[in-house]
Amino acid sequence: MVSQTVTLQGHIIDSLILAKVLDAIVMLGGTFTLSEITVGVTRKDSSHATILIDAPTTRLLQDILIAIQPHGAVVAVEQDCTVVPAPSDGIFPEDFYATSHLSTQIRWQGTWITVPQPEMDVAIIVKLSPLSAHMVPMGSVKKGDLIVTGRNGIRVFPLERPQERDVFGFMAAKVSSERPHRHIITDVANRMKVIREQRKEGNGSVKVLFAGGPAIVHSGGREALAWIIEAGYIHVLFCGNALAAHDMEASLYGTSLGYNLGIGRSMPHGHEHHLRTINRVRALGSIQKIVESGIIKEGIMAACVRQGVQMVLAGTIRDDGPLPDVITDSMKAQEAMRIAIPGVELALLVASTLHAVATGNLLPASTPTVCVDINPAVPTKLSDRGSFQAVGLVMDSSSFLRELAWELGWNR
Amino acid sequence: MVSQTVTLQGHIIDSLILAKVLDAIVMLGGTFTLSEITVGVTRKDSSHATILIDAPTTRLLQDILIAIQPHGAVVAVEQDCTVVPAPSDGIFPEDFYATSHLSTQIRWQGTWITVPQPEMDVAIIVKLSPLSAHMVPMGSVKKGDLIVTGRNGIRVFPLERPQERDVFGFMAAKVSSERPHRHIITDVANRMKVIREQRKEGNGSVKVLFAGGPAIVHSGGREALAWIIEAGYIHVLFCGNALAAHDMEASLYGTSLGYNLGIGRSMPHGHEHHLRTINRVRALGSIQKIVESGIIKEGIMAACVRQGVQMVLAGTIRDDGPLPDVITDSMKAQEAMRIAIPGVELALLVASTLHAVATGNLLPASTPTVCVDINPAVPTKLSDRGSFQAVGLVMDSSSFLRELAWELGWNR
Amino acid sequence: MVSQTVTLQGHIIDSLILAKVLDAIVMLGGTFTLSEITVGVTRKDSSHATILIDAPTTRLLQDILIAIQPHGAVVAVEQDCTVVPAPSDGIFPEDFYATSHLSTQIRWQGTWITVPQPEMDVAIIVKLSPLSAHMVPMGSVKKGDLIVTGRNGIRVFPLERPQERDVFGFMAAKVSSERPHRHIITDVANRMKVIREQRKEGNGSVKVLFAGGPAIVHSGGREALAWIIEAGYIHVLFCGNALAAHDMEASLYGTSLGYNLGIGRSMPHGHEHHLRTINRVRALGSIQKIVESGIIKEGIMAACVRQGVQMVLAGTIRDDGPLPDVITDSMKAQEAMRIAIPGVELALLVASTLHAVATGNLLPASTPTVCVDINPAVPTKLSDRGSFQAVGLVMDSSSFLRELAWELGWNR
Amino acid sequence: MVSQTVTLQGHIIDSLILAKVLDAIVMLGGTFTLSEITVGVTRKDSSHATILIDAPTTRLLQDILIAIQPHGAVVAVEQDCTVVPAPSDGIFPEDFYATSHLSTQIRWQGTWITVPQPEMDVAIIVKLSPLSAHMVPMGSVKKGDLIVTGRNGIRVFPLERPQERDVFGFMAAKVSSERPHRHIITDVANRMKVIREQRKEGNGSVKVLFAGGPAIVHSGGREALAWIIEAGYIHVLFCGNALAAHDMEASLYGTSLGYNLGIGRSMPHGHEHHLRTINRVRALGSIQKIVESGIIKEGIMAACVRQGVQMVLAGTIRDDGPLPDVITDSMKAQEAMRIAIPGVELALLVASTLHAVATGNLLPASTPTVCVDINPAVPTKLSDRGSFQAVGLVMDSSSFLRELAWELGWNR
Repeated sequence: MVSQTVTLQGHIIDSLILAKVLDAIVMLGGTFTLSEITVGVTRKDSSHATILIDAPTTRLLQDILIAIQPHGAVVAVEQDCTVVPAPSDGIFPEDFYATSHLSTQIRWQGTWITVPQPEMDVAIIVKLSPLSAHMVPMGSVKKGDLIVTGRNGIRVFPLERPQERDVFGFMAAKVSSERPHRHIITDVANRMKVIREQRKEGNGSVKVLFAGGPAIVHSGGREALAWIIEAGYIHVLFCGNALAAHDMEASLYGTSLGYNLGIGRSMPHGHEHHLRTINRVRALGSIQKIVESGIIKEGIMAACVRQGVQMVLAGTIRDDGPLPDVITDSMKAQEAMRIAIPGVELALLVASTLHAVATGNLLPASTPTVCVDINPAVPTKLSDRGSFQAVGLVMDSSSFLRELAWELGWNR
Repeated sequence: MVSQTVTLQGHIIDSLILAKVLDAIVMLGGTFTLSEITVGVTRKDSSHATILIDAPTTRLLQDILIAIQPHGAVVAVEQDCTVVPAPSDGIFPEDFYATSHLSTQIRWQGTWITVPQPEMDVAIIVKLSPLSAHMVPMGSVKKGDLIVTGRNGIRVFPLERPQERDVFGFMAAKVSSERPHRHIITDVANRMKVIREQRKEGNGSVKVLFAGGPAIVHSGGREALAWIIEAGYIHVLFCGNALAAHDMEASLYGTSLGYNLGIGRSMPHGHEHHLRTINRVRALGSIQKIVESGIIKEGIMAACVRQGVQMVLAGTIRDDGPLPDVITDSMKAQEAMRIAIPGVELALLVASTLHAVATGNLLPASTPTVCVDINPAVPTKLSDRGSFQAVGLVMDSSSFLRELAWELGWNR
Repeated sequence: MVSQTVTLQGHIIDSLILAKVLDAIVMLGGTFTLSEITVGVTRKDSSHATILIDAPTTRLLQDILIAIQPHGAVVAVEQDCTVVPAPSDGIFPEDFYATSHLSTQIRWQGTWITVPQPEMDVAIIVKLSPLSAHMVPMGSVKKGDLIVTGRNGIRVFPLERPQERDVFGFMAAKVSSERPHRHIITDVANRMKVIREQRKEGNGSVKVLFAGGPAIVHSGGREALAWIIEAGYIHVLFCGNALAAHDMEASLYGTSLGYNLGIGRSMPHGHEHHLRTINRVRALGSIQKIVESGIIKEGIMAACVRQGVQMVLAGTIRDDGPLPDVITDSMKAQEAMRIAIPGVELALLVASTLHAVATGNLLPASTPTVCVDINPAVPTKLSDRGSFQAVGLVMDSSSFLRELAWELGWNR
Repeated sequence: MVSQTVTLQGHIIDSLILAKVLDAIVMLGGTFTLSEITVGVTRKDSSHATILIDAPTTRLLQDILIAIQPHGAVVAVEQDCTVVPAPSDGIFPEDFYATSHLSTQIRWQGTWITVPQPEMDVAIIVKLSPLSAHMVPMGSVKKGDLIVTGRNGIRVFPLERPQERDVFGFMAAKVSSERPHRHIITDVANRMKVIREQRKEGNGSVKVLFAGGPAIVHSGGREALAWIIEAGYIHVLFCGNALAAHDMEASLYGTSLGYNLGIGRSMPHGHEHHLRTINRVRALGSIQKIVESGIIKEGIMAACVRQGVQMVLAGTIRDDGPLPDVITDSMKAQEAMRIAIPGVELALLVASTLHAVATGNLLPASTPTVCVDINPAVPTKLSDRGSFQAVGLVMDSSSFLRELAWELGWNR
């Protein structure tokens, strides 16, 4: 029998943290003794617990420590983190620490250093002069970079319950098609108004991110989304070739995948329209040029160009063309997305599993996020991936966008 | 080798009927010779074909004749239909003819008699004085009733392509979540306006039928539906205990299944509210009485009572209470629905698999029908069940109802 | 400002109960002071907390007490429960206590009495000689029956975490289509083996309940289910007219809804087969008679008749016929289901939303339950309805039944 | 009023082609006269029709000709196709002909030339010495390449109904979760056996293609798929980083996304396992090397390496790492997929929307294809994209793979 004392601090009772830690110890086969517990008597007070863990083997004890560390459990005697140089470009040392998207600190020579912009499933690199720590994806590491290994000297901070009471503050972000979505959409609109106001007052670093798929255009949500962008509510757009192509097809031909949006039926050979659209944009050189040329006057892309929205178009194997703006290399596209993330204070992930999951991985857990899809599996998958401030809405994207636009002041 | 000559008449080429008949013959193992074919040279002209069918066995030939009869193929020599008396109450003779929901005629002493109000999966009863034929469900047949048997002397009329070009006239009613639904909703609203106009002009027999489930209330569509009813657009309502109970719960407590619709969160012990609502209505005696008493002033039930909407509430094993208006016997409820069907010229089946399928079985194939559900399986199941003039919309019911209400003139 | 002291006892920390209670107090607008807390030092020890709640109004305090009572919070001074006579048949007194499906006790003249067979959304009736308390549905109450009202003197017992570690013991029963289901099916099979063993040893009161829909037959799961029943693993069957009719149609015609199960394609006029099947059973009088006559030799119904499985067939408005065994009145069918529930130690709810929800309402929260559906909304809806020991599997019913049968020893 | 005579030839009646052409003419606003019609009297005979189309404007007549050309309607006087040089690299001439995935010919100096390997949404390039025509994607065209434009001198061949009667020969490939899938899986297995046999007899050019997503591993289908590959039934694999990484994670750690496949529950910090797996493969250089090194002995990747399966791993923005074998550039990955397509005589698209759609675009319409997904929208989307020989199965991927493996002889 081996044992280890760990401590927990914070709102560990009403945030369920203590319960989860004790649960994990038992589920993994250990036993515990609560050697000391101080419970804050009001909601403001912090609580503190000291837990003695007993386990039959060192291996199992190690497993338990691994399991409870993400809840903020700190091994009683603080140690520095360890680092090992990367053995080659693009390769981490064997025992690298794999990050979560929670706020994270490492201990270096007795001092806790915050690692900025937390992201899931990358490693932590330590730079010595000046001393700093950063998240680094596997493909970007260079031979000799100092990479944090093991679990000593690393601590993460569970999400605190928000003080205000809005949709993102619910205990468990439920995903249901049978809940009225109006309040959620109202809360989202209010956040968007606040962010737009902050930007008007000069805080250009706060941003709303929108990531979406082509079903937005097919299902009739284009007009509403274009209005929302034109009105200044969206500042970063992540999408693929299809959303952009179908949006511009709608400008040039009035169709989406050959389906006439104006008269409500399929057009003969209309499936060619998106190809002809892509070809024209390629001939002109970029989305910006076809908008500036006046050929495309309205729609999502036109609104983005006019409003200076930061766009990242990522390529996939199902693309035709693609448009000249598409970043066909997926790692370069991911890097472009990563660069656009800082400052995002609200993320809307609409009708695209790929973009929803890819963006979800890059966002810090603390960023309020709304995932909208007609298929309940998509919001569920996202909320399964972490302790995310995520709200899922099971509805079609055009209904969502129109209701959101109305809340923001659209008159159509 | 046995053979039989059949004839086909009508728009058999552009309605695909000839193709389907030839297809069926070959798929079942027969061969055909087109002994005569007259093709109408313009769209208005009718075409005519005489087909000689060869098959290896009498049994197989019979199978083929059975398979092609619903397409209007008539065995060349016309025969009267045969009838056999029902052996007991509630039991058809062995070889009874099972109906489709297409327009149907039987031949009696050389004359073709139309069977009114076609319905799926019942039998045809012949009455002699005065001579008439009717659809009869199994449970309603009495010993000695004359029931049509076999296939001789029975003909059905395939749906003709509509002359006008609206959503119900598409060749194949596609079900897709990625089609813009606005045009479909506009077409539905236009039909509702026409029917309301006809009723104002004194034709009270034309009706719009609405069948719906409780998700309408949970998802926030109650206000819009109540407005649509109050404005006179719906004349028959099929629902269950839950829709009515949750609607009135919303009036009395502001909640639906305990979820507060006004402030957007669950209420403590709110799940009791629907029980307390049902108990109060039981104490007063009926939905009509609680509305007339002034206790319930707004919502779906109140609008139905005020507008004299014909309501059929059918019970199920998941009901609490139930409300005093619920017909707990399923066969009696089905009969009440059957009685309410004649005159229905538009059916809206929203967010209830049970009511959608049950109503679909009772409606003639020629009744325009819209099926709305967030789960694509429900509209697909309905359109699988026959040659229905059915359109499927994959969207949440509250978005549908709000967009429909807006098209009809709602200002909220 | 008003205040009230409440106490909590049990595994309130590692079962998250304390956290949820404190959460509820704050979410509803109150504040708390933990005036006393004793934490059990090992997992076996019980903990105890005394909480002083402050709220701005009496109304709000009452709301908070209502909200936390289901977690086991007891107002510090114990009181007897109150009862009021039912004002009429079928009507509860206004302030009746609406039950949950958790284990429940009432306090009568200082003594706590357990109410057997907990069920959701009914009331509690007290009988005086001899003294006892029972669950009573609204429709069954008689004028003058003593019905428990208010919240004093009522306590419920939250589900304890199970000691063993099987699929039903997970903290939160996740519903996911991307989890391997083999272990869950193995655990289910093991429970079924144990229950069969117990019955062989003479304990005939323990039972496995199966509730299912007709998709079982359509999707090809009939053979496996029939084997499972024939092998003695199922003791109660809840279904509707359709499952039984399509099962016997498969015996008589080899089809299901007209689709030939043997050769894998639709048969001409095959949709009539289920009607002809129902007609034959009606002519003979019952399912038991058609099986005993030797006309139907295999399948689900034949296995149930041979094995003496207790069957409840409940009617709905979508039924053709129906079969003579169907209880067409939904309240009588519900009562028949209620009577069959005691002793059920495992419930399998497969491919039927209606039966899954209806059965879920009647089962005590402590009964292990597996809900299988291709549509993730169904298992999610069930697990939303309470603190259920429920596991959801998103898969098609025939794959589930075949894998379950293999685990139980089937060789096909 | 303008008019044009067109001719149609082939099985135009029983293949519904004539009906669709007449339908299109009328739907677009034209009228027709059937000036001549010869109907083949038996199924083997070809039919012939000459249709005079009248339309109010030249523009509308042109629209009609565009609409009916894909059905094989040929403008009565045959003309050569026209070509225009590409204006720049990567850009087609304005009026380029956009291809379908049906068999296609172009007319060049009086001769019809077949364009090999039809693919959707690309153009046709004509090479002069030696004379040939090929499909060319937009990104691959070079300045000056001769690209076919307009519609003259192009004909496509609608899919003929297959002679044999197997699952791929149904008139309309229905997608349903309520159909028994056993026959479909049996038919698929039989095709796989035939192709394996043909390869054993030296015809190495015939191939089975498998495209799949990581849900195969998560849901427990890995073992079955590995067996199918090891037994020689699959010859080309399209997948992404995730399928390969989670498969090898299962070899190294026994988990998939951190979920322990052996004991059926999540492991502490198991989500890191796929990252560590990727890191190790990167350190070794390739999937082939880690298999050949003996570190990974079983699973999907090991089977592919041992059996010499042609693998294309395509990158996306949601990838971690990625594995060194992943082609991160989407256009290069698409090209690698295109190269692997010739010879594919059966395509299995399992649990990956992205790979299903991307592969579906590249496959000729005549390739039998099975699309398996738990979400009915995916098979429906595929079958919407063309006249595909596609069968959709709504079931979870592990059940599909296990049942397929059993049909092929697996004993587990």
